[in-house]
Amino acid sequence: MEIIKGGVTAAKGFEAASTAAGIKYKDRTDMALIYSQAPCVAAGTFTKNVVKAAPVKWDQQVVGSGAKVQAVVVNSGIANACTGAEGFGYCKDTAVAAAKALDIPEDGVLIGSTGVIGKQMPIDKLTAGIDVLAGKKNDTLENGTEAAKAIMTTDTCEKELAAVIEVGGKQVTIGGMAKGSGMIHPNMCTMLAFVTTDAVIAKETLQKALSGDVDDTYNMISVDGDTSTNDTVILLANGLAGNPEIVYGSPEYEEFALALHAINEYLAKKIAGDGEGATALFEVKAVGCESVEQAKTLAKSIVCSNLTKTAIAGHDANWGRILCAMGYSGAQFDPEKVDLFFESKAGKIQIIENGTAVDYSEAEATKILSEPEVTAIADVKMGAEEAVAWGCDLTHGYIEINADYRS
Amino acid sequence: MEIIKGGVTAAKGFEAASTAAGIKYKDRTDMALIYSQAPCVAAGTFTKNVVKAAPVKWDQQVVGSGAKVQAVVVNSGIANACTGAEGFGYCKDTAVAAAKALDIPEDGVLIGSTGVIGKQMPIDKLTAGIDVLAGKKNDTLENGTEAAKAIMTTDTCEKELAAVIEVGGKQVTIGGMAKGSGMIHPNMCTMLAFVTTDAVIAKETLQKALSGDVDDTYNMISVDGDTSTNDTVILLANGLAGNPEIVYGSPEYEEFALALHAINEYLAKKIAGDGEGATALFEVKAVGCESVEQAKTLAKSIVCSNLTKTAIAGHDANWGRILCAMGYSGAQFDPEKVDLFFESKAGKIQIIENGTAVDYSEAEATKILSEPEVTAIADVKMGAEEAVAWGCDLTHGYIEINADYRS
Repeated sequence: MEIIKGGVTAAKGFEAASTAAGIKYKDRTDMALIYSQAPCVAAGTFTKNVVKAAPVKWDQQVVGSGAKVQAVVVNSGIANACTGAEGFGYCKDTAVAAAKALDIPEDGVLIGSTGVIGKQMPIDKLTAGIDVLAGKKNDTLENGTEAAKAIMTTDTCEKELAAVIEVGGKQVTIGGMAKGSGMIHPNMCTMLAFVTTDAVIAKETLQKALSGDVDDTYNMISVDGDTSTNDTVILLANGLAGNPEIVYGSPEYEEFALALHAINEYLAKKIAGDGEGATALFEVKAVGCESVEQAKTLAKSIVCSNLTKTAIAGHDANWGRILCAMGYSGAQFDPEKVDLFFESKAGKIQIIENGTAVDYSEAEATKILSEPEVTAIADVKMGAEEAVAWGCDLTHGYIEINADYRS
Repeated sequence: MEIIKGGVTAAKGFEAASTAAGIKYKDRTDMALIYSQAPCVAAGTFTKNVVKAAPVKWDQQVVGSGAKVQAVVVNSGIANACTGAEGFGYCKDTAVAAAKALDIPEDGVLIGSTGVIGKQMPIDKLTAGIDVLAGKKNDTLENGTEAAKAIMTTDTCEKELAAVIEVGGKQVTIGGMAKGSGMIHPNMCTMLAFVTTDAVIAKETLQKALSGDVDDTYNMISVDGDTSTNDTVILLANGLAGNPEIVYGSPEYEEFALALHAINEYLAKKIAGDGEGATALFEVKAVGCESVEQAKTLAKSIVCSNLTKTAIAGHDANWGRILCAMGYSGAQFDPEKVDLFFESKAGKIQIIENGTAVDYSEAEATKILSEPEVTAIADVKMGAEEAVAWGCDLTHGYIEINADYRS
């Protein structure tokens, strides 16, 4: 596997475009299109929130039906959640408009949305935007990047990555883009991510690869503990690489899954590190666990705690808050066996041995915790399983963004 | 029942004292003593965190043994959590010192602590403080208030209340004090609360009254979602009122339970409203539920969401975040049946009817949400059960307090 530049247009036959449709923002792009020159098999995972946005319901229907997909229309102004039958109607209108503009079937259109909850879609602006997107789309990396920018809300940077593997002498490419900064919590994916590949692969195999990986990537990140109504991960495969079909369980499948994982993990970490107001990516490894489930529970509990997150913001080795978060996680362990380390580019330091503090240098710990990416490693000494979760620090920036977001 | 002025010294035979022992703070009191002239039956509820502070373990042992209790020693500088065998040893030392200073048995001493996790207790300062407390204690309301002040950490005000009921012609008094501002989350009590009464009541009955009420009061508040290692609610009864024994299930028991609930609810709400950095008490009522459990789950999920809390800070009727928090709570309901109202001293307004926004006045909603106590009422129209949870808004103050708390 080789990591390459690019995003959703890296794989053969995928095009993208962006436009400023004026749905919410005045001075920036707010709509993106992904288009495939050939029909795709589609896999998806969606929010587990009982309150699902209309586009989530639409996409679940399309992906569930097994229809071939050829386009994804995304807007970043209005979530189209809590909008009732009227909101769902706008999904149908969106698909009709895209089908017409792109000359594809209506059930070949997926829809992504993020933004304000509860507002109805200005459908005229949206359909006008679709016509512009259809006219502008192309397969350049630049257009992929512009699409990644157009789906941002409170994100501070676009997020995209691509990778290449070889399958039966053919070059297979996977590329993806994601957005997500607030309302991020591990339960499904908690953001929007769109991954495209030119691999020849069956729909069921594609879904297995995606579902298996989401639990270890997007579901292990948290910015604020809030699981969105709109979370969506879509994976499209158009088969244009011409490789021998990737069969579940084969070495080629493992290679494909590895590349998919690299992209998903990169995008997930990017989302966590770009959490609203964040100044640092906060990585937590729970090791020495008796099960992966226990490791995930511990890692997530630490990464989700407002108190550990404010401590990271303060570059403060406040390990008591970490032990406390482990303690209320629901996982069972012996607090008097826990070892804890902090690690970053500035070094690694042990803070706790067997549940109590070692005689560490506070200055050294602060130095390590002042890097833009910091890791806490908690060892419960019960087994060999481990898990990683990603989050960010909790800062004044988060309050600024969210105390007055809707207005 | 009559609400009266006072706290832990309101009931007959209870004394209190405070002192500046210099355990952590330099310029304020940081130790408190509650002393009863007669031995008390004791009830307690404690944190469910796997990581329990040494004093929690000590108190569980004392309360569990059925020993009569005559004193509670509290310090607000050091939590004595994650301190291993050495930390537990200091509990024994505390009890020995208090027993000697007060001429009571060692197993008649309970210990409360709050503050920094992981630091060992400066036991000489603590025992010196105990001697001062023993010399200063008296049964005035002033000393009760001073004790309530001494147990504060990031609290901005002391919290105490008392009530009187009549049982068999005798006046029975209940009074309590509490502290709690950060690391507050519903799971057990999430703060320190000490309630005293002169009622004649059996230990088992006392424990039933306490356990039954904690679930509806302290366990329904949340400041930051972090369940502390030190949470403790202690209820002491010394029998000096001379009333006929309060028997479980009797009308007198109901009256006693009602008075206890009034005190616990008042203290719990005070803690929520005094959350770190809070500018508003955020009350959430889930109504029309099919079970109390469902109602509690929904109310807690709303009150715990960082996004709803920042919206309250911004006086923003961002109802989408409330529906979203209900949706990921784990409770099942039909989003398209939900009604939502906001209420405060400034009025009441309906925001959502059957899952979508009504045509409400944004200015009116902002006015209602600008009060120091605001209530959200969510009706899921499934039944007649309901529950109330209390929290606070999430502000810059929270970040200021916690990004640099330990240093």
